[in-house]
Amino acid sequence: MTDSYEPTERTIPTRSRHRASYDRAAVHSILDEAYVCHLGFVRDGAPVVLPTLYGRIGDRLYVHGSTGSRPLRMAGTGGEEAPGLPVCLTVTHVDGLVLARSAFHHSINYRSVVVHGTAHQVTNPEELRTALDALVDHVVPGRSQDSRPADTKELAATAVLRLDLDEVSAKVRTGGPNDEPEDANLPHWSGVIPVRKTYGAPIPADDHDPAIALPAYLSVL
Amino acid sequence: MTDSYEPTERTIPTRSRHRASYDRAAVHSILDEAYVCHLGFVRDGAPVVLPTLYGRIGDRLYVHGSTGSRPLRMAGTGGEEAPGLPVCLTVTHVDGLVLARSAFHHSINYRSVVVHGTAHQVTNPEELRTALDALVDHVVPGRSQDSRPADTKELAATAVLRLDLDEVSAKVRTGGPNDEPEDANLPHWSGVIPVRKTYGAPIPADDHDPAIALPAYLSVL
Repeated sequence: MTDSYEPTERTIPTRSRHRASYDRAAVHSILDEAYVCHLGFVRDGAPVVLPTLYGRIGDRLYVHGSTGSRPLRMAGTGGEEAPGLPVCLTVTHVDGLVLARSAFHHSINYRSVVVHGTAHQVTNPEELRTALDALVDHVVPGRSQDSRPADTKELAATAVLRLDLDEVSAKVRTGGPNDEPEDANLPHWSGVIPVRKTYGAPIPADDHDPAIALPAYLSVL
Repeated sequence: MTDSYEPTERTIPTRSRHRASYDRAAVHSILDEAYVCHLGFVRDGAPVVLPTLYGRIGDRLYVHGSTGSRPLRMAGTGGEEAPGLPVCLTVTHVDGLVLARSAFHHSINYRSVVVHGTAHQVTNPEELRTALDALVDHVVPGRSQDSRPADTKELAATAVLRLDLDEVSAKVRTGGPNDEPEDANLPHWSGVIPVRKTYGAPIPADDHDPAIALPAYLSVL
């Protein structure tokens, strides 16, 4: 396995190419930090984009759905043998508001990953269990070992799509505004407002047993 | 104008219908709070999902692009007369991590909006200026009045797509985990970890004039 994904016509951006990256570690890091991806597919010739939970194991993404959800039904139940569903899966973090002196140069600092490929429904029972653990551990690392695993009925109601990381790119903007030199003396504040994701104090369930302490993997959030 | 959007076959979810909403104010509020939307379109028969800046004026969304970007070129330069580009525009906020006692009931608290429609390139010069102000004010309300407006060259390099809010729905999950009654006594912590967007201390540009104070519209972030 090389350290980078191979660029393709679809993963070379038409704009701001200097912001594109194919570095495997950078792509994995962006994917692992987000909670929700935006899954795009084509239905009756029109695009559909749905927010979806996902997990990652190596170079495989697992996308969550019920057996009744549209993308799952469209991918077909034939597993590897089915033609699968062409998808585009995108994840974006907003890291800052970039305020330039000119309206034109206003921007956002961000990190995004775009994955193109064909999603297949996971049909192998062992892979399905592993994928479900990855989905739970994506919400909070370590959590799958501290919850009741899915039983037969739950497994039957859960469907997971697999999407291999192959045709994939990251795009990252960092740093301050790129104002025109002739705008340097305009009387407008310019700079960056950082935007961060933070966690609030845990809220126990209504019927939570107070004797159960907050586990270590949650207190570090 | 009614207070709600009319549900359509595309905006009635196949799953968790009780979480769907067509309330106009709820949709606008979710759209106004996000910085980036995920714009889906079809290219050579395959889906593409790109993170994009946008703004809103009433029931119109304006999506930012350069004149060279793919969705802009695909929408055509004929303005209202061009066939336009079928798109799906989705915005999602993650509000919490929902930890159930069972792996199956793990979830995310979220607010999302999905818009279906056909995007048209804005060609009217007056509408284009108004749309660019809306894009800048979407990053920070009030900012368009405190920055240099686009000049003729910048206007020519900027393209904006308009997407009317018509076929649109929101979906919201709130509250704690929905564990099965028989799992109530399992020894796992259960509840919600709130996730919030917060702002860091403003970082002035490298060449920023220290005599220019932080404007009030930034100090409230």
